Amino acid sequence: MVAAPVSKARAEATPVDRLHALLATDMAAADRLIHDRLGSTVALIPDLAKHLIDSGGKRLRPLLTLAAARLGGYQGAAHIRLAAAVEFIHTATLLHDDVVDLSTLRRGKIAANVVWGNKPSVLVGDFLFSRAFQLMVEAGDIAVLDVLAGASAVIAEGEVMQLKSSSNLGTTESDYLRVITAKTAALFSAAGEAGAMISAHSRKLSDALRSYGHNLGIAFQLVDDALDYSGRQAQMGKSVGDDFREAKVTLPVILAFQRADEEARRFWTRTIETGPQHEGDLKRAIHYVEQSGAIDETRARAQHYADEACQALAALPPSDIRGELIDVAEFCVGRGY
Amino acid sequence: MVAAPVSKARAEATPVDRLHALLATDMAAADRLIHDRLGSTVALIPDLAKHLIDSGGKRLRPLLTLAAARLGGYQGAAHIRLAAAVEFIHTATLLHDDVVDLSTLRRGKIAANVVWGNKPSVLVGDFLFSRAFQLMVEAGDIAVLDVLAGASAVIAEGEVMQLKSSSNLGTTESDYLRVITAKTAALFSAAGEAGAMISAHSRKLSDALRSYGHNLGIAFQLVDDALDYSGRQAQMGKSVGDDFREAKVTLPVILAFQRADEEARRFWTRTIETGPQHEGDLKRAIHYVEQSGAIDETRARAQHYADEACQALAALPPSDIRGELIDVAEFCVGRGY
Repeated sequence: MVAAPVSKARAEATPVDRLHALLATDMAAADRLIHDRLGSTVALIPDLAKHLIDSGGKRLRPLLTLAAARLGGYQGAAHIRLAAAVEFIHTATLLHDDVVDLSTLRRGKIAANVVWGNKPSVLVGDFLFSRAFQLMVEAGDIAVLDVLAGASAVIAEGEVMQLKSSSNLGTTESDYLRVITAKTAALFSAAGEAGAMISAHSRKLSDALRSYGHNLGIAFQLVDDALDYSGRQAQMGKSVGDDFREAKVTLPVILAFQRADEEARRFWTRTIETGPQHEGDLKRAIHYVEQSGAIDETRARAQHYADEACQALAALPPSDIRGELIDVAEFCVGRGY
Repeated sequence: MVAAPVSKARAEATPVDRLHALLATDMAAADRLIHDRLGSTVALIPDLAKHLIDSGGKRLRPLLTLAAARLGGYQGAAHIRLAAAVEFIHTATLLHDDVVDLSTLRRGKIAANVVWGNKPSVLVGDFLFSRAFQLMVEAGDIAVLDVLAGASAVIAEGEVMQLKSSSNLGTTESDYLRVITAKTAALFSAAGEAGAMISAHSRKLSDALRSYGHNLGIAFQLVDDALDYSGRQAQMGKSVGDDFREAKVTLPVILAFQRADEEARRFWTRTIETGPQHEGDLKRAIHYVEQSGAIDETRARAQHYADEACQALAALPPSDIRGELIDVAEFCVGRGY
């Protein structure tokens, strides 16, 4: 479904880039607002927040809010505030995640908790979370606030569920799906729905965008979790193995463990459940995961959710934005190969 | 200003108890809602949240919201939701504080971060914070949401400021006042204002309650900080010295350091700025603080703010609730002696 390339530059641009281009004015306004609102007389707050916010994230979630508002023909300015709010919620959860996971890297940069310590990361996360709600209040639509406040609670529930499944090979596929639906898909879904709701009170649009966001979020997380065990990624010098080192039980591990022989089961039990992990374990984990077909199957599931995401948009009239959203879903599944 | 005792039981009740009694039906409803809304299918969330919420806190902040609503003659049910939201915000900040301060005790119980670890404490704090906003959305007043979202951002700013003043004897009285105004008074102020706003759109009532809460919050924190260096508290077996061990620079330390001779200055520099602290240091710190008059002066400042709090209510017509709020302010200053 990718549009035929019309120029070299266009051929090189990803669908995410093209969506950014279609929404360039709105996205620039959202970026300005994001930088404006992370300001505080307490200098550490913008210093720490900018470290993460300017670290090259793709702004997928606010992009989804802006796209949804445009699909609804929205003419006001509240969608800019909602897009900034969505990015603040996302950034707050990343800051807290990195504290919880004891991460040392985030988007290839040293994580904020390593530079400034855990304490400011927790508190600046709280600050950004509060700012997000202030922005939503300014947007002025209480039904939208409800959707985003609900998503925030669900995200926290997902993170707690994930803690429980950590180091636990008894985690089932359905446990895993519940975790990623809550920790990742809930915000994608709310980001799309919020943009649609502010622009139109047609249930059709907000249902479509909620479903698109939900399915895209699941597909996105499945691919993320597959890439963390990708030998090809490792060959390309990209970071892999974070989930393995943190003993997170993601779908690639669940599937590989299901198909494991005695020796492989002992390996997974040691590396994920009891420890310790040794040098060379990651390479062996990648081998088991790839050889068992778990990566291909995880990607196949991602493809299914991406298809569902595209399907959710089928009810809407064709437009440039709709076209790019469809391509974004396809692109998310294909990325990293 | 304390009402004359009419019975033994009444004589023993504090003004906080009497305010609870006046608002018993509302407070019971708020408590039910609090317990209802900390529910989650993820069992760890209510387990951890209840540990703190049922640990005998006085519910001063939600009490203030309920009292304000009654002063405004409010007849609806939204004040119950706001009171629960205020308590959730407070509980979320306590959970994150204990992670930030590496606390081991909270309200005389083992702190949640010690029982369950830092990770769930951070995430359950996020959950409660989100639930607070969901409750505010249900209350349905966007201006009230604005007040409480603003207070939440200010609290986080105050906590970050406090980190900066930690271990820093260059912290001035005005730095300290900024910290406690943000980290403590902002929520007391917003709790009162929110209750007033939901009940009446009279600026007079919401101004009065905002000012009362602000001044009460400062007085409350000043007394808390004085009690942490109280030899008498220590004799009574109550916990003292938390701030000292965490090298927090509170007003008692600022004043004692200002009045210190060479030897005492060396002591404060070692114990607060450079470390290490030794056994017997807390006793010596309490001696210096008390002997310098810093405790009496901290209490005198608290009395000033309590007087301001009472003054803020002078514009309102007399009533049982107004009377108890005035007594609560006086009681907060007198407590612990």
